[in-house]
Parts: sequence; structure tokens; C-alpha cells
Amino acid sequence: MNAESLLHYISQHIHLTGEEIDILLSLTKYRKYLKGQFVVQQGDVCQYESFVLSGCLKTFYIDKEGQEHVVMFSVEDWWASDLGSFLTHTPADYNVQCLENTELFQFPYDKMELLYAKIPKLERFFRIILQKAFVASQKRIVQNFSLTAKERYLQFKQQYPQIEQRVPQYLIASYLGITKEFLSKIRNQLILEQ
Amino acid sequence: MNAESLLHYISQHIHLTGEEIDILLSLTKYRKYLKGQFVVQQGDVCQYESFVLSGCLKTFYIDKEGQEHVVMFSVEDWWASDLGSFLTHTPADYNVQCLENTELFQFPYDKMELLYAKIPKLERFFRIILQKAFVASQKRIVQNFSLTAKERYLQFKQQYPQIEQRVPQYLIASYLGITKEFLSKIRNQLILEQ
Repeated sequence: MNAESLLHYISQHIHLTGEEIDILLSLTKYRKYLKGQFVVQQGDVCQYESFVLSGCLKTFYIDKEGQEHVVMFSVEDWWASDLGSFLTHTPADYNVQCLENTELFQFPYDKMELLYAKIPKLERFFRIILQKAFVASQKRIVQNFSLTAKERYLQFKQQYPQIEQRVPQYLIASYLGITKEFLSKIRNQLILEQ
Repeated sequence: MNAESLLHYISQHIHLTGEEIDILLSLTKYRKYLKGQFVVQQGDVCQYESFVLSGCLKTFYIDKEGQEHVVMFSVEDWWASDLGSFLTHTPADYNVQCLENTELFQFPYDKMELLYAKIPKLERFFRIILQKAFVASQKRIVQNFSLTAKERYLQFKQQYPQIEQRVPQYLIASYLGITKEFLSKIRNQLILEQ
């Protein structure tokens, strides 16, 4: 199991001893998914908080009209889960699906309290991770009522520099809340402005 | 200083010793605000995470056209701050203003690391608080593209049972993203359906 990138990521926030790393690895799990597979399905309870070792995923919502709304993309060193469902152990609002073959490192719901008890420093780690997630979520709400589609697209390119080449255009349009045709128009406009 | 309701709230999540309570109270502060006063102003850095002892506040955003968007109300036992600004120490996206005379218990930004060092249990406390905040924020995003205005209003009544009598109708309409007239129409419809 290749947990190196997770351990490096954790070490940016807290220091774990060798013994703590052993406990962490014994209570969490590594899993491979194929392109197209679902990590979470809307309506099921999300059982894992998943750290992306490699690959790319989309988190999306299907509304009553069957329309897909992409709320997040996840690549290496990001997290992928319906955190609300995971934390409250209630049915997921979102789907999380792999856009590429993906390797995840998963924290199981039923091991979290044991993990916190055995490695109290993880409280700090997840407190910091949640801060970042919350801030990103709040920014998303503000952007939706304050930025034009073009500004949201530029913001997206800045926030997700690696993703644009890996993800189909219609999913980026869905994330931005616009049609594929309108995204194409914005891109052409930006090329002309350069 | 009446910190009792804060201490009761904290005790639902972690147990603090007498000594830890003394440290907590020495590093935090109690403050009264008058109706109309601002706790946070858009563009300033939010210096405090504020717990509501009494009173009522609105968190809102002013867009480029000068339009007000209410994103949150806070009453007793809720938090009121621009958490994104507080956590990242960058200018606030939001204003937080008192709708009634209000008493707050404030956690200063520059004391947080000292508080975590002296009372490590607070990592757990704020981890749990952030979980709740994050889940609420995600639900808000989903509701905005999945529920009708009427469904959002019913959801609002359920989430904030005490607030409807305390807050002007136009602010509730702003929170729901509809006009005051449309809110009035929805309310009349619901009365007819009873």
C-alpha cells in the first residue's frame, strides 16, 4: 500500500510517531477504483472519508428533473466524500464518481472515534482540514451570487489548475452552472482578449 | 460576565476542568452590542469567532449592484462570524450585524493557538463545531438547486423555529433568495392549505 502521499500531507499539519502511523494504517484502508465506479451514491450513507492518492473524481447532485450539478472535483491530495453524510451518518445528497482510475486512502466511519482516542492529534488534523473545507464551501456560496460566469470560470482555473485538461468540458460547465455552449463562448472570448 | 450558556454548550461536547475553564475565560471576552451594530464588516478581517449568549444577528453579503443577500441568522447558542475570514485572516466576504441588542462571547484570533496549546480538548470541540457548520453549508448549496421557494421556506421554518417572529419579512425573503411579495404569496398559500 502506498500511503506516502497521505503521510506527507498529514505531516504538513501534525507530527505522527512511528507507532501512531502504524495505528493509523491498521485502522484505515487503501482501495483502487476503476474509471466510472462510484465511491458514494446519492441515498446511501457515505462510509468513508477518502483521501485521493491518484486519479480524479467528481462530486455531483442529480435534481428532481434528472439534471446533474457538479459541486466539486477531487484530484491528488484532495478529499472525496459526501462529508455531510459521513459525519451525520445519514443518506448522501451527492454522488462521488471516478473520472479516471483512482486510488484512495479511506478513513472508515466506524473507526473514527477509535482513531481519535488512540491518536488525539488527529482532532487537530481534522479540525484544520474541516476549516479548509468550510472556507471553500462558503466561498462557493458567495461566488454563486457575486461573480459573473466568466469570473467564475477564471476562478475555477485558478483553484483547479490541473483539472481542466483532465475533465470533459460539459462537467466544467455543470460545475460553473452554465451550458457547455456558454462555456465555449467564454473561452473563445478569453482567447481573443489575450 | 455570564458565560454559563457557553460553558453548558461546550460541556455537551467535551469536559473541561475548573482550571481549564479559568484559562478559557481569561483568554476570551464578553461583549455587548446594540441593535444595528456591526460585529464584522465586509472587507475587514474578522477578529473573533463569536458565540451568541443573547440576541439575534444576520450575516449578509452586499453584491456589486448593492443588493443584500442574507446567508445566515444567528440566535442564542449559535455562532456568528465570517468564519472564512477569521480562519484565514483575510478580508471578510460578509457583514455580521445585530438585529437586536446582543451579547456575545468572543474567541480572539490571536489567542486561538494559545487556547489549543493550553486546552488541547478544544481541538475536538472546534472539530465538532466545524463539522456542523460544514454540513449546514453543504445543505444550503444543495437546497439552492434542489428545492422550490416554498420548500426552502418550510425548511427555513424548521431550521430556525424561533427566528421568524424576531426578524423582518424582507430579510427572510433575502435569505430564501426571493422577493418579499413572493414570500407573502407563499405564506398565504400555506394558510389556505391548512
